[in-house]
Amino acid sequence: MIIILKPEATKQDADEILAQIESVGLKPLYMPGTERTVLGAIGDERKLGSLHLESHPCVDRITPILTPYKLVSRESHPADTLVDIGGAMVGGKRFTIIAGPCAVESPEQMLLTAQAVRDTGAHCLRGGAYKPRSSPYSFQGLGKQGLEILHDVSEKVGLPAVTEVIETEDVSLVEKYAAAFQVGARNMQNFRLLKALGKSRKPVILKRGMSATVEDLLLAAEYIVSEGNPKVILCERGIRTFETATRNTLDLNAIPYIKQHSHLPVIVDPSHGTGVREYVTPMAKAAAACGADGLIVEVHNDPKSALSDGHQSLDPDQFMRFMDEIRPFVQAAGKEL
Amino acid sequence: MIIILKPEATKQDADEILAQIESVGLKPLYMPGTERTVLGAIGDERKLGSLHLESHPCVDRITPILTPYKLVSRESHPADTLVDIGGAMVGGKRFTIIAGPCAVESPEQMLLTAQAVRDTGAHCLRGGAYKPRSSPYSFQGLGKQGLEILHDVSEKVGLPAVTEVIETEDVSLVEKYAAAFQVGARNMQNFRLLKALGKSRKPVILKRGMSATVEDLLLAAEYIVSEGNPKVILCERGIRTFETATRNTLDLNAIPYIKQHSHLPVIVDPSHGTGVREYVTPMAKAAAACGADGLIVEVHNDPKSALSDGHQSLDPDQFMRFMDEIRPFVQAAGKEL
Amino acid sequence: MIIILKPEATKQDADEILAQIESVGLKPLYMPGTERTVLGAIGDERKLGSLHLESHPCVDRITPILTPYKLVSRESHPADTLVDIGGAMVGGKRFTIIAGPCAVESPEQMLLTAQAVRDTGAHCLRGGAYKPRSSPYSFQGLGKQGLEILHDVSEKVGLPAVTEVIETEDVSLVEKYAAAFQVGARNMQNFRLLKALGKSRKPVILKRGMSATVEDLLLAAEYIVSEGNPKVILCERGIRTFETATRNTLDLNAIPYIKQHSHLPVIVDPSHGTGVREYVTPMAKAAAACGADGLIVEVHNDPKSALSDGHQSLDPDQFMRFMDEIRPFVQAAGKEL
Amino acid sequence: MIIILKPEATKQDADEILAQIESVGLKPLYMPGTERTVLGAIGDERKLGSLHLESHPCVDRITPILTPYKLVSRESHPADTLVDIGGAMVGGKRFTIIAGPCAVESPEQMLLTAQAVRDTGAHCLRGGAYKPRSSPYSFQGLGKQGLEILHDVSEKVGLPAVTEVIETEDVSLVEKYAAAFQVGARNMQNFRLLKALGKSRKPVILKRGMSATVEDLLLAAEYIVSEGNPKVILCERGIRTFETATRNTLDLNAIPYIKQHSHLPVIVDPSHGTGVREYVTPMAKAAAACGADGLIVEVHNDPKSALSDGHQSLDPDQFMRFMDEIRPFVQAAGKEL
Repeated sequence: MIIILKPEATKQDADEILAQIESVGLKPLYMPGTERTVLGAIGDERKLGSLHLESHPCVDRITPILTPYKLVSRESHPADTLVDIGGAMVGGKRFTIIAGPCAVESPEQMLLTAQAVRDTGAHCLRGGAYKPRSSPYSFQGLGKQGLEILHDVSEKVGLPAVTEVIETEDVSLVEKYAAAFQVGARNMQNFRLLKALGKSRKPVILKRGMSATVEDLLLAAEYIVSEGNPKVILCERGIRTFETATRNTLDLNAIPYIKQHSHLPVIVDPSHGTGVREYVTPMAKAAAACGADGLIVEVHNDPKSALSDGHQSLDPDQFMRFMDEIRPFVQAAGKEL
Repeated sequence: MIIILKPEATKQDADEILAQIESVGLKPLYMPGTERTVLGAIGDERKLGSLHLESHPCVDRITPILTPYKLVSRESHPADTLVDIGGAMVGGKRFTIIAGPCAVESPEQMLLTAQAVRDTGAHCLRGGAYKPRSSPYSFQGLGKQGLEILHDVSEKVGLPAVTEVIETEDVSLVEKYAAAFQVGARNMQNFRLLKALGKSRKPVILKRGMSATVEDLLLAAEYIVSEGNPKVILCERGIRTFETATRNTLDLNAIPYIKQHSHLPVIVDPSHGTGVREYVTPMAKAAAACGADGLIVEVHNDPKSALSDGHQSLDPDQFMRFMDEIRPFVQAAGKEL
Repeated sequence: MIIILKPEATKQDADEILAQIESVGLKPLYMPGTERTVLGAIGDERKLGSLHLESHPCVDRITPILTPYKLVSRESHPADTLVDIGGAMVGGKRFTIIAGPCAVESPEQMLLTAQAVRDTGAHCLRGGAYKPRSSPYSFQGLGKQGLEILHDVSEKVGLPAVTEVIETEDVSLVEKYAAAFQVGARNMQNFRLLKALGKSRKPVILKRGMSATVEDLLLAAEYIVSEGNPKVILCERGIRTFETATRNTLDLNAIPYIKQHSHLPVIVDPSHGTGVREYVTPMAKAAAACGADGLIVEVHNDPKSALSDGHQSLDPDQFMRFMDEIRPFVQAAGKEL
Repeated sequence: MIIILKPEATKQDADEILAQIESVGLKPLYMPGTERTVLGAIGDERKLGSLHLESHPCVDRITPILTPYKLVSRESHPADTLVDIGGAMVGGKRFTIIAGPCAVESPEQMLLTAQAVRDTGAHCLRGGAYKPRSSPYSFQGLGKQGLEILHDVSEKVGLPAVTEVIETEDVSLVEKYAAAFQVGARNMQNFRLLKALGKSRKPVILKRGMSATVEDLLLAAEYIVSEGNPKVILCERGIRTFETATRNTLDLNAIPYIKQHSHLPVIVDPSHGTGVREYVTPMAKAAAACGADGLIVEVHNDPKSALSDGHQSLDPDQFMRFMDEIRPFVQAAGKEL
C-alpha cells in the first residue's frame, strides 16, 4: 500500500505511521520527496485495514497495490470456475441460456412460456415470485404461491429454476423451490443477504447494482464466497448513466475486465441492459462475442399482457429467432450453446 | 397519460387501446397526427398501471401527466409535515442537527462523543450498530451490543437516538432501542424493509440511494407512508457520478425540488455527501441556505482511531466551530438552530 | 407535441397557447384533465420551436412526438447510407477497419505502422496531427508537418488517410491532406466546425462526446448534413460514467439504437472505448456482433515508445491476431472484412 | 510518482524503468513486494511525462503524487487571486453578480434588461451573441450584430460586458466589444481557443464542461495561464448525471475543493445548474454559503418571449427579490454584494 502524506506532515508524523505499519507485521518504507513524503507498506496490505490510516489527519491519499478482494480473484485461483445449476453447467466451454418471464403470473403463463423456452433450447427457467418495484402501486409478485408454480412447472418441463431472493428470511424457502438464487441489482449490497447465501449450497447469480463498479461487484461476490459458497455467477445487467435512450447502459467492458480479474463465470442480461425488445438480440450477440458465459433473458408467452417488463420481453417466436441468430456468435467464440 | 404510438400502428390498434382506457374508467382521447398517432387518458392515470400499456407492441412511449407518488406529494398535502424524533422536531421553522459517530465502537467512545455533541447543541445522537460495508473484511458493526450501548448513552446524555436498520427481521429490535430508524443509501429500494417500517410508529430517516433519482426517493417514501407511517424524513447524501474528487456528488438541487414536490421534511448529510472533513462545514452551510430542514453529520471523539469513516468525521472542537459557523446561515434561512 | 400545463394554469392561459399553436399552422388540441390540462399540436412540430413554449410560465413540461433531427433519421430516409472514404466504402455489407497510431510522430513511425496495418488488411490509415490533450504539458501533435507525413505515407502505402480536425480555420488545410475528417469527442458540439465540415465534400467521422446522448450525436450529425454534406459516419467511443475500471464505458447499446433511428453508418472505437490494450479485441468482436459497420483502432509500431495512448495501442503482431480473431464475428454478422 | 508493475514484471523490467527515471533527473526507488513490485520517482514528476511510462507493457498503474496542474494550484500561489472585469472585481471579499439574458436578441431587449439589472445592483452584464445549440434548427445568436448591441448597451448603462467566445478566429473581435470572455461548457476543452485566450489581456470566465472533473477544469485553466493570461475565473454550472429532475446536477462540492486546491476565483451559474426558474434563488444562496465568489445568472425583461433559456430566466421583479434574498447569505459568508 502506498500512503501519500499531506504537504504539512512532519517527519514525526511519518515515523508514527511507519511504526503502525511495522506493528501489524508489514515492512515499512519511507520515501521523502521534494514536495511530499510518501510511505509504503510491503506485505499483505489487507492487514492494514485495522489501522484505518485513511482517517489519519496527515494522510492525503492511499493507493492500494493489491485488489481488495481475494477469494474471487484470478490471482488466487487462476483456473475458470464452473457452476452447476441443477445439471446445467455455467462457465468453461458452455454458453448457458436462462430464459423465462420477468414474473411468475399464473400456472398457465409459466407452463406455456417454460415449454416454449425448453423446446427452443434454453438450459434454465427464470421467473420472479418477489418483485422489487420502484412504485408501491406496481405488481409485487405472487410470493410463496409464485415459488410453488415455478417449482411445479420446472419439474414438468425438466428445466432447473432460477428465481430472485430479496430477503434473508426467505433464503430457506427459496432454496427449497429453486435450483439457483438470483440476487437483483437493488440487493447487490444487501450484505446480510449475501452472507446468508454464502451459507447455502446452491448457486447464486449475483447481478451488478445500478451504480456499482465492477470492483464493488467482485467485493459483493467475495461476501458470498468467504462464507463458504463458491458457486457464484456474476451478471452484468447495465448501469445507470445520463443516457436515457435505453433503460440502462449495458457495460460490456465489464466482461473482459471480469475475465481478467476473476475466475468466476459471468453472464449478461440483455433484457434489463437495454429495456427495449428490439435491442435484446443484438446485445446478446455482443455479449457472446466479448466472452460472456451465458445470458439471462426475459421471454413471455404473451408480452402484451405481461404484468411487468413486457416491453423488453421476447415472445416464443422471437425467442426462437433469437436462439438462431446468436448461435453463430456463440460458435465463433468457441463455445457451445 | 399520453400514449405515443409507433409509426406503424393502425387505427384498429388505437381503437383497441382506447377501449382498454375506457374499461378502467378513464376518458380516452384520440389524436391522429401527420406522422404519429397520440392517445390520451384523462382521469386518475394510476389506474392505467394495471393495463401495462408500455408492453403493447404498438406503443412507442408513454408520458405520465401526474407524479407516480401521491401520499408524499405536495399536491395531495400542501402544508409542511413536521416529524417528532423523541422530542426533537424536524421540519417547519426548526433546523435539526443529528450528530454522532459513523459506528458505535465502545461505551467510552459513544459517551465522550455524545456528551460533546449534546453540549454543543445537537438535537439527536446518531451511531450505527449494523454497518453495510463494501468489503467483507471491513468492520461490520457491533450489532445488538451496539444498540444497547447507543440506547444507554442516549438515555444518559438525554438525546434521542437515531440508528440504521438494514433488515426487516431487525425492525422490532431496533425499534426498542432507537427513537428513529435510518435507512441507508444501499437499502433505499429494499421494499420489504420499507413496508415493515411503514407499520412502525417511529420516524424513518430515508437516505437517497447512490443511483436513485429524486423521484425514486419519493416513491420509496411512498412505500412507507402508504403502509401507515407518515413520519418520514428524506435525506440527501450525494449521488454517484464520474467526479472522483469527492466521495459522492452532493445534489443540493434536490432540496428545492423536494420542497416543491413534497410536504416531507428533508435533511442533508454533508459527511457522506463530500467524504472530506474540510468540506463538511461549507456544504452544511449550503444545505441550510437552500432550504434543508437539518443535517446529519459524523462526529467522533477521536477520528484518527475511528473504525470507519474517520476521514470525514469532525472531532468535538471541529464540531463546535461547525455549529458556530453554520448558525448565521440557518438564521438567514429563517430557521432556528 | 404534447404540452402539459402547470396545475395553476387557467382556461385563458390555455387559449392563449392554443392560439399560438394555430398561428404557426399546426392543429391545436385541448385536453382538460381532472388535475392538469394538456395541450397538443398536430403537424410538423419543429415549427413550434419559434414559439419557445418551454419558457411560458404556465407550461410545466413539453413532450415532443417526433425526433428533433430529420435529415439523418431513418424515417426520412429508410435505406442505409454508404460513405466512400477515398475508395474504402463504409456501410452496407462492408466492415471497414481504420487503423493507425493515435498521433503522427515521425515519418518512420508512420511508415512502419502503415505498412503493417495495410499488410494485415486495414482499409484506411488513421493518425492525428492535432492532439487535444487535457494537460498543456502533454504532447500536442506535429500540426501541419504531421499532416504532410500522414499524406506522404498514405500515398506510399495506398491507404486513404483519416485525421482529426479541431478547428474551423484548419478545415481547408486538413481537406487537402486527408481523405476523411475525424471530429473528436471534445468537438462533437463545436457547431461552427460542424457547419464548416457541412460545406466540404469529404466524409466526416463524427465521434460521440463523452457526455453526449445518442440523440445529441444525431443532432450534431444533422448540423453537418443540413449544410449539404451527407457523408457522415457516426462513431461510438465510450461515455463517461462512474466506472473507473476502464477509461470510458463503451455504450454498445448505441449501435442498435442508431441503426433503428438513422440511416447513417456507425463504427466503434474499442481503443478509447476501453483504454486497455487487452480489452480492444473482445470489444471489437462485440461491436461487430451488434451491428457496427467498422472499427477505428489504434495501432503503433512500438507502443512502448508512443507519445500518446500507448497503453491502449496494439503492436503489429497484436493487430494481426486482432484481425484474425474478429473475422468470424464479422462473417457471423453477414458482413465482409 | 508511484509505478505499480504487473505481477509478471521481472527484475530486469524494473531496472530498465528505474534507469529511465534516473535519465530525466529524478531519484528512482525500488520497492519489491511479496506479490507486486512498486517503483517510485522522487522530484518534479511532470518530467516523467516524456517517458510515457503508462505505455510500458510491464506497468499496471501509475499514481501521481503531485497535481498535474501547477500555475493555477494553491501550492504554487497561496494567496487568492482577484480578477478585474472592467472595474468590477471578482475574488477576495467581493461577491460579484453578472446578470443578463442568455442571448442578445434586440437593442430594446438588451437595454430594458440591462437597466433593470444595473438598478438592482448587478456588477456586470451578460448576453450571448454566439449561441451553441444542440439542434441546428434552434436560434444561433445574432453574431457580430449582437456584439455591437451588447457593447452599446454596456456603455449606456455603465456595466462591463461579458460574452461567450466560441472560436479562435473570433477572439480579437470579441475582445474589442467585451470586458471579459466567457468560455462555455462545450468549449472547456477547445484547447486552441484556450491558448488564444491565454494571449489576451482580458479576463476569461471558464465554465466547467458537462462531463469534466474539477481536475479537468483546473487543467483547462492551466492552458490559459501558461500562455500568459492569469485572469481566469472558474465557473461551476452543473454536470451531467443520471438525474433528470433538473437540467444539470449543480456540483457545489466543487467550490470548497477549488478553494482548497487553487487560488483562482470561482463563481456559480445557478440558471444552467438547475434549468428551473424556481430553483435559481435557493441554489444561489447555497453557492454564496459554501464560498463562491459570485454568480452568473440569466435575467430577461420578458422571459416568456425569450429566444432561448426563458424557462430558467428571472424577470426584473424576480431578480430584485433574488438580490434581496441572497444578501443575508452573502453577508453571513463575510462578503460584500
